[in-house]
This record gives sequence, C-alpha cells and structure tokens, in this order.
Amino acid sequence: MATPQLLSSSNLKSLFDSVNTFLFDCDGVIWKGETLIDGVSQTLDLLRSKGKNVVFVTNNSMKSRRQYAEKFRSLGLTSVTQDEIFSSSFAAAMYLKVNNFPMDKKVYVIGGEGVIEELKFAGYTALGGPEDSDKKPQWKSNCLFEHDKSVGAVVVGLDPNINYYKLQYGTLCVRENPGCLFIATNRDSVGHMTDLQEWPGAGCMVSAMCGSTDREPIVVGKPSTFMMDFLLHKFGTETSRMCMVGDRLDTDILFGQNAGCKTLLVLSGVTSESKLLEEGNNIKPDYYTSMVSDILKLMDSP
Amino acid sequence: MATPQLLSSSNLKSLFDSVNTFLFDCDGVIWKGETLIDGVSQTLDLLRSKGKNVVFVTNNSMKSRRQYAEKFRSLGLTSVTQDEIFSSSFAAAMYLKVNNFPMDKKVYVIGGEGVIEELKFAGYTALGGPEDSDKKPQWKSNCLFEHDKSVGAVVVGLDPNINYYKLQYGTLCVRENPGCLFIATNRDSVGHMTDLQEWPGAGCMVSAMCGSTDREPIVVGKPSTFMMDFLLHKFGTETSRMCMVGDRLDTDILFGQNAGCKTLLVLSGVTSESKLLEEGNNIKPDYYTSMVSDILKLMDSP
Repeated sequence: MATPQLLSSSNLKSLFDSVNTFLFDCDGVIWKGETLIDGVSQTLDLLRSKGKNVVFVTNNSMKSRRQYAEKFRSLGLTSVTQDEIFSSSFAAAMYLKVNNFPMDKKVYVIGGEGVIEELKFAGYTALGGPEDSDKKPQWKSNCLFEHDKSVGAVVVGLDPNINYYKLQYGTLCVRENPGCLFIATNRDSVGHMTDLQEWPGAGCMVSAMCGSTDREPIVVGKPSTFMMDFLLHKFGTETSRMCMVGDRLDTDILFGQNAGCKTLLVLSGVTSESKLLEEGNNIKPDYYTSMVSDILKLMDSP
Repeated sequence: MATPQLLSSSNLKSLFDSVNTFLFDCDGVIWKGETLIDGVSQTLDLLRSKGKNVVFVTNNSMKSRRQYAEKFRSLGLTSVTQDEIFSSSFAAAMYLKVNNFPMDKKVYVIGGEGVIEELKFAGYTALGGPEDSDKKPQWKSNCLFEHDKSVGAVVVGLDPNINYYKLQYGTLCVRENPGCLFIATNRDSVGHMTDLQEWPGAGCMVSAMCGSTDREPIVVGKPSTFMMDFLLHKFGTETSRMCMVGDRLDTDILFGQNAGCKTLLVLSGVTSESKLLEEGNNIKPDYYTSMVSDILKLMDSP
C-alpha cells in the first residue's frame, strides 16, 4: 500500500479536482468534546464556496441528528443542516428500517438519548437507555430478573451510564429471545469525550455485551459502509468522487477505504503522526495533515 | 476425541481407582447462588471417608478464600477449610506474588471485595473495587480525570457495580501507565449468580476493558492452569490422579484437560446435555452426570 502523502498545495489541488463531496468525522476533526477546533468554520465556508458538498458522518451515538444540528449551531456552525448529518444513532434506526424489523417488536437500548430518539422518529418502541441508568438489580434467591420477550433487537452504543442492570437486560434479550438482533452503533475503543483526554468509547459497551452473550454484533457505524447507500442516494455521486476526512484509522479511514473514497487523516484527534507511520499500521490514508483548517491555509498559499 | 461417558457404577469405580483428588467448581456444582445443591454434603463426606482429597476451585472472584470458607460454613458444609479453597481472587494476588510485582506499585481493581481482600492479604495496596461503585465522572471541558500513575496492574473480575468511572480509571492505567499489567480473574460469560437464572459474568467486564484498551488480559482463573502449581504443591500428587468436576465446558472441563486431569461434567449448572452432545462442541469431558450426588447414588447401587 502506498505511503500516505502529507497534504500540500499541489496534492490538495488534485484532490479538489477529483472529489465533489467531503465527508467529515466530528469528534477530533470538527470539535473536541464541547470545543470547536480552530478554523473549522472558515474551512467549511471555503468548501461550500467552491461548490463542494459537505457531510458529517459521526460514530458518536449520544445524540440524534436533530440534537447534532443543535450542537453545530451552538458552536457557531449555523450553516449545517440535519440532512447533512449521518450519525450512528440514525444508522441503527435505518438498519432496522431497511431490514423490515417488525413494528410490533421492541428495541432495547444500551446507549444515550440519541439512539432512543432516532428509534422513535423511525416509529419503533424503544426501551432502556437513560431510563435504566439508576437501576440496580440484586442477586436475590427466588427473585427473577424479568425482561420483555417482545424485544427483537438490542442496540448498543456509547453509554456513560453503563451498569449491570442494562447489561443483564440486554444479555437476556440476546440470549433468550429467539432471533433477537444484536446491533452495535460502532466499536470505537476510545474517543475525545472531553478536550483534555480520551475516554472509553462504544467499543467498551459493545465488547461487554460480546463477553456476556458470546455473540458478535452487526456494526452499522464506521468502518461498516451501511451508511453509504444513504449518502449515495442523497448526493447522487460516485464514492470515488468523495473524500473521507477523519482522525481514526480503524473507523474513519477504513470506512473511506471500504467504500472506495479518497481518504484524509487529520492529526487533531486520537491518531498521532508516529502511530500513523509506525511499521505495524496497515491502514494508510491517501493524505494526512495536522488539522482541517490546513485546507484553508494550503489553498491560500501560492 | 472420545465421546463423553455417562457416569455409571462401573466407570465410577475405575475413576475412583485412578484418582486421589477431586477438584470441584462451586457455582452450579456445589451451590446455585445462595442455595446448596441437594446431596452435596453427604457426597463430600463419602469422598473424604474413602481417603480422597477434596478441593474447591472457583472462578467467582466476589469473595476471598476467607469469605468462601464462611459461605461453606453458612450452607452447612462445616468441614471445608480455607486451605481447600482456590478462588480466582486468590489467583490474581498469587500471580502478582510469583511474578515479583513491586510492593511499591498499586493495583486498581474492577471487581468485588474478595479481590481487594486477597490483594491486601498478599501485602499489596489495592484501589477501586466497591469504593468506586457510586462514582460518576462528568464529561466537562477543562476537567481532567486524574488517575494514579503508580498503578502497575489492573485486576478485572466479576463486578455487579460496574460503571463508567471504573472503566475509565482502569483504561487510563492500562493505556497510559508504562508496563501496566491487565489481569483477568476469569472470562466466564455468564454464571448462576442466583438460583433462578444466569447473569453476566466476569467475561463481560473483562471484555469491556478489552474493548477500550485494545489489549488482551492475562487470565489467572480457569481454564488457565496458573492455579495448578499451587494445587500440586499442596497435594503432592500428579495431575493425572486428579478429577476436575464442573458445570462449564469452556472453563472447568477445559481447565481439567489443559492440566492433564480426568474430567467430570455435571448438568446442574450452565451446560445442558444437548449442549454437551451437539456437533459444534469440541470440549468433551471424560464423564458426565446430572449432579454431584450421583456419585453417592452410584456407589450405593449394586
């Protein structure tokens, strides 16, 4: 596989000529936690002014698309609309939709409000999520932990209120309800939930459920290309005319490669330059640069 | 591999002639949750009266050996001493001991009081465990989650109070403290924490940490044979003269086989006869029977 090229004025020009859509990851690319990364707003404006489509593809399932649009607005990125946002919470609901998941079956959620909201938007009955965050089961003799037999899918995403109650509920559904689906929004090991450091990601909760169910999940977020059909339908372009911009090799860059996109790694998130270039790394983006706003700088330079 | 034999009067006699030590798993074999399984007490009496050694090897790390001896007493099994009990909580402390883990390093625990107590008995400073059960970190900007840089090992076992605080603490130690060990008491997916049903086991918490650290643990409980050196030292017998009695194929029976013991599966716990005999199962015990007290019945039968 070719060595990744450091982004420069000249290869940026050829990248611009070959793509018409930029797909951005959010955490570590657009923002870190609640802090916007410098120069993002101006860079998005530039891309739009050059006629490029701009899309946000995030594995963070804590928010719904509606809630993400609010976050963009609150950070001053007022031009971003809900239609440009593809979150793994949305992907989980769409996975059920396109697979004709029966409307009379319920969905148990280990995850945040975003997953619950997307499932409800799609017309499903969602259980669990934040509602079960303070529940504590007791190991008592003759006391049966009851679960709803009509749960036909368990969706697992990032959950900062993970607990034993949710894990037992989800495990019982997957192990005992015949045909119950086990869906992971994504499997990121860690993420910049705050600007100062990394925290366990959805990969932590998903792996916990793998450990208790002895099952592997269906993953709907990156690097799975499940979302790509929705993107293609919306923008009517080929994947070779898209560039995926992200900070993670094993989700963002792999997703871009799996889908046939150009790929650009930014070093403003979880991946360092030494990690990218070390011998053991087999996931190599086409280009890399320190941060999104380098696009702006390199366009301006002679 | 040979088909498992249903235990009978005749093959029980040959098993008795060939072994002098019986190793018993506890959950699903001796008790279910807080309920003693019928006939266990009389069966242990019989084995002792025939001059057999009796040992208890449990993956459940919620208790220390001292606490297990109390549980045996409370269930009426007054003859069992602390020296006959080998728990995965003890194994974790012994692993550090035999590997000369520095006494000035600390150990972070995701698990119960049993692990903390065994670590303290062995002279180590243990952090976490039940003390961290009610802590809730917040994802706040400019707020750093601090962890102790002198933690040199994270021990993960069954923890019904698993939460995001503990997972973040353990993850930071494993990812950021140079050379930090990641030790699993065991990886049982589920267990009979109550008599009526199965609940997520240590495999759930251990896998969660694998998901956030991208590391695999050192496992000290079954099916790892780490404990076997202690057993051999205590009883001065060959492993071929031991019989492991358990209810789980992937821990108990595999442990017995890994160590070169005879193996007897009882169907009073997590494994059903159909699961044992199904084509996909590659872990086959030498013998199987419905419950421990069958030994008593078969000895009495002509």
